[in-house]
Amino acid sequence: MPTFQTVRGMRDLLGEEAQTFTYIISKARETAVLYGYRKVITPVVETLELLSAKSGEEIRQRMFIFKDLGDRQVALRPEFTASIARLATAALKNEPKPLRLFSVGSVYRYDEPQRGRYREFWQSNFELIGSGRPEADAEIVLLTNSLMKTLDLQGYAFKIGHIGVIRGILSQENVDEKTQNAILQRMDKKEYEEAFKLAPTPRCRSMLEGLLKLKSNDCFETVEKMKSYVATYEIAKAAVENLGEVLKLVVESGCPVQVVEPAFARGLEYYTGMIFEIYIPELDIALGGGGRYDRLIELFGGEHTPAVGCAHGIDRVALALQTQKATLAGKVGKRVLVLAVNDSLKVESLKIAQMLRSLGVIVEFEIMGRKMGKALEDADKRQADFAVIVGERELKEGSVVLRNLAKREQTIVPIKELAEKIKS
Amino acid sequence: MPTFQTVRGMRDLLGEEAQTFTYIISKARETAVLYGYRKVITPVVETLELLSAKSGEEIRQRMFIFKDLGDRQVALRPEFTASIARLATAALKNEPKPLRLFSVGSVYRYDEPQRGRYREFWQSNFELIGSGRPEADAEIVLLTNSLMKTLDLQGYAFKIGHIGVIRGILSQENVDEKTQNAILQRMDKKEYEEAFKLAPTPRCRSMLEGLLKLKSNDCFETVEKMKSYVATYEIAKAAVENLGEVLKLVVESGCPVQVVEPAFARGLEYYTGMIFEIYIPELDIALGGGGRYDRLIELFGGEHTPAVGCAHGIDRVALALQTQKATLAGKVGKRVLVLAVNDSLKVESLKIAQMLRSLGVIVEFEIMGRKMGKALEDADKRQADFAVIVGERELKEGSVVLRNLAKREQTIVPIKELAEKIKS
Repeated sequence: MPTFQTVRGMRDLLGEEAQTFTYIISKARETAVLYGYRKVITPVVETLELLSAKSGEEIRQRMFIFKDLGDRQVALRPEFTASIARLATAALKNEPKPLRLFSVGSVYRYDEPQRGRYREFWQSNFELIGSGRPEADAEIVLLTNSLMKTLDLQGYAFKIGHIGVIRGILSQENVDEKTQNAILQRMDKKEYEEAFKLAPTPRCRSMLEGLLKLKSNDCFETVEKMKSYVATYEIAKAAVENLGEVLKLVVESGCPVQVVEPAFARGLEYYTGMIFEIYIPELDIALGGGGRYDRLIELFGGEHTPAVGCAHGIDRVALALQTQKATLAGKVGKRVLVLAVNDSLKVESLKIAQMLRSLGVIVEFEIMGRKMGKALEDADKRQADFAVIVGERELKEGSVVLRNLAKREQTIVPIKELAEKIKS
Repeated sequence: MPTFQTVRGMRDLLGEEAQTFTYIISKARETAVLYGYRKVITPVVETLELLSAKSGEEIRQRMFIFKDLGDRQVALRPEFTASIARLATAALKNEPKPLRLFSVGSVYRYDEPQRGRYREFWQSNFELIGSGRPEADAEIVLLTNSLMKTLDLQGYAFKIGHIGVIRGILSQENVDEKTQNAILQRMDKKEYEEAFKLAPTPRCRSMLEGLLKLKSNDCFETVEKMKSYVATYEIAKAAVENLGEVLKLVVESGCPVQVVEPAFARGLEYYTGMIFEIYIPELDIALGGGGRYDRLIELFGGEHTPAVGCAHGIDRVALALQTQKATLAGKVGKRVLVLAVNDSLKVESLKIAQMLRSLGVIVEFEIMGRKMGKALEDADKRQADFAVIVGERELKEGSVVLRNLAKREQTIVPIKELAEKIKS
């Protein structure tokens, strides 16, 4: 019989990779706590109506959609923001603003699997709801910076832009929203030729093309250039000014923004303001990103509520750490194998194992019924630190044999001193 | 426009409930570490083939099944064991035994929603693969006991049995496996009349009926009664003896098993040995359970590999803690609001916020642009401990105003002493 496989695009995370995931998630959780973000857990399965409302055509086409047994059209969430916006219009509607909300979990997109891209992937997600001010945008960028820093990622850089720049130009050039979305989608994929073809007039086209050439090595210089470039486009100009304010707060409070990207777009349709992504030099995929979405909550039936948020791709951050050969901080305690020299001592051995665990020692109990030599050999292979050997003679005197597996030394230790001896 | 809703049977976890979830999961993770269980993360979406292979008719009928965009028959996992068994036959096939594996995440069953029962629910899952010995069964029960104890659940009790007792009787009475499964399913639901009707002979029926009457207040007494009752049923008798051995290890090493249930069955078809569930007096639903499944891995195409495992229902444990009005251990650090008296001090204020966070203080930065009085009022409502007020005059001397919100007192504090002052 052939063995079973995972579904194409889905994967198991084992060993070190699972540990890295757990580590990144714990750091995201710490960041959330330090920034005052409260944990919320929303379902993986949501109504298709919710998930397709404002996610963008491209993501809609890549969703896992199905009917449940009650004939409801549902889908697996492709991201968190729609669920959080749903909360903001319902369960959390009357909570005082700002709302700071943190989630972590798996999301689903039917993409072509490749390095750093899976059909099930993990995100940590932060949403800051209720403020339209630049310090709210700055907070989202700064907390991403804190997370990357605490993970000790090397040489990471922020790419930052403002969706209001392109939308401002397009609106003033009378481009309808649907065409705007189509143009932005292609620009997000860097398919510029395709994007520019959709511009309805030569002037519109040349304005978009010109954006690409404004980039310089200095963030603030780029912003100044953008300002003059869109001087006659009121909405776009306001967007650039807003970007400048956010940038100032972010850079001056110590976050290394590297690139302001005038023609920057992101796949999700709901963005209305500042957008950003984060990269390391070794990988050409974003480790995370986010932006402002001031109209989503009212589109979902709530009051007008400005908001900004971000998500970090755990799979990609893990890949980044692996690429940079990072060693994870956080110590693991001493690992001990407890074994009885014969079956009549099993209960006593179990009690000793329990006692050690209650004092924080990691204990694997011998459950294979192996002879001592074999069990010790195995403990060695598993790189356990100690073996605790429970024998009749020592037990009568309230002691056991403690064997240091690396040093191949053993001593008789009173049970009441055992945990201390192991930890020291 | 009406607001969006969650899908029927699915729910959001907010505020205290989300905290309780996170707390339970962190305790499960600690337990896993202390017992030497390694974290594995498997997909929520698996092939239908895998998930329906040996889960039992009842669970099969309640799965979320659909086709992905590549026309693959897939389903949302209704539990973890099938995925773990898949790992044991493939990616982890050559790892030295025993394997101790820990998972936590959401699982999906299309049940009628009711108190403590949702269509998306959470489990912590432990599997111990490679040992058929009673100490392996004991370990799974003991680690569940450790988890319940560390969560400070009051008055919990284990119900324990052995699927080999009923199967042993049925096999010797020549009942085919399909009928056995149907009988066990009904016995699991305590639909005894329905179950007994399926017995092909009066003797078989009376044997099953008799099992129900063997229960006594003393675990070991029940085992003795079972032993005589099935004296002429070889397989059933061996099962009772095995149960007795497990029970001895568990009880004598300090775990409060309360009930041995001779006619105990569980919904999953793959069990072959000891089975258990855990209850508190206030709720009539199991908080968790598990059992031995010695044939699943070979059915999945692996070598013969005995195994035992358990899962804990996080939703139900959370309900239990809530019912018992438990206060969660684990302190939250001091919470601080940082605000600038005017916009020109925003960058300095952000820097102070970052500095405090890097020293472990929970900081909410004022992002609403509110006047000081309003911001302080809000901080008070949110039960923050302190406000840090960044003003021009104090800043020139390297200080800020620290306001104790509960005491309504404020002092000028040098920035370099700020974190210490807040924490003390």
